[in-house]
Amino acid sequence: MYGLIGKFISADGKRDELIGYLLEGLRDMPGCLSYIVASDPAEPNTIWVTEAWSDADSHKASLALPQVQAAIQKARPIIAGMEQIAETQPQGGHGLHSGD
Amino acid sequence: MYGLIGKFISADGKRDELIGYLLEGLRDMPGCLSYIVASDPAEPNTIWVTEAWSDADSHKASLALPQVQAAIQKARPIIAGMEQIAETQPQGGHGLHSGD
Repeated sequence: MYGLIGKFISADGKRDELIGYLLEGLRDMPGCLSYIVASDPAEPNTIWVTEAWSDADSHKASLALPQVQAAIQKARPIIAGMEQIAETQPQGGHGLHSGD
Repeated sequence: MYGLIGKFISADGKRDELIGYLLEGLRDMPGCLSYIVASDPAEPNTIWVTEAWSDADSHKASLALPQVQAAIQKARPIIAGMEQIAETQPQGGHGLHSGD
């Protein structure tokens, strides 16, 4: 498995809008086992995204999916920053599911 | 919802054993929506744990469950460090499920 832990910083006051675009984009992504979008109660513009995929190629391929491309187009103007915290190798747990 | 992103550092060479205890402990935790245990390919003793719960109280209560207490007892001697990266408020996504 392949995992990502990352942070988005939205433009001021645009966090909820950005979260909406992120959630829109994540429907029907082959190989996606988990993709959770969370706000940070301590930082008003920060969004945490934690992902698990069957492999790195599935993640890479997802970026070309039409719904993901559409979400990226809408999100881009209100993204003030992005930071990758870690690339991981998920070993197991609860909540790893193909499809939804 | 309530979320946690955290890091465990195992004693040298004990990461796989520690991951095993973490995975053992997480069965049947009420209110647990996602709990993913991952190794870090870039740091040989690092484990990432990302969690989503229905609320903070469910997370707190889980620490008293017998299977979690048993896992903590076994894990403690081989934990070299712990770091909480963020407390979050999950807003949605894929892979948020009660039970398993």
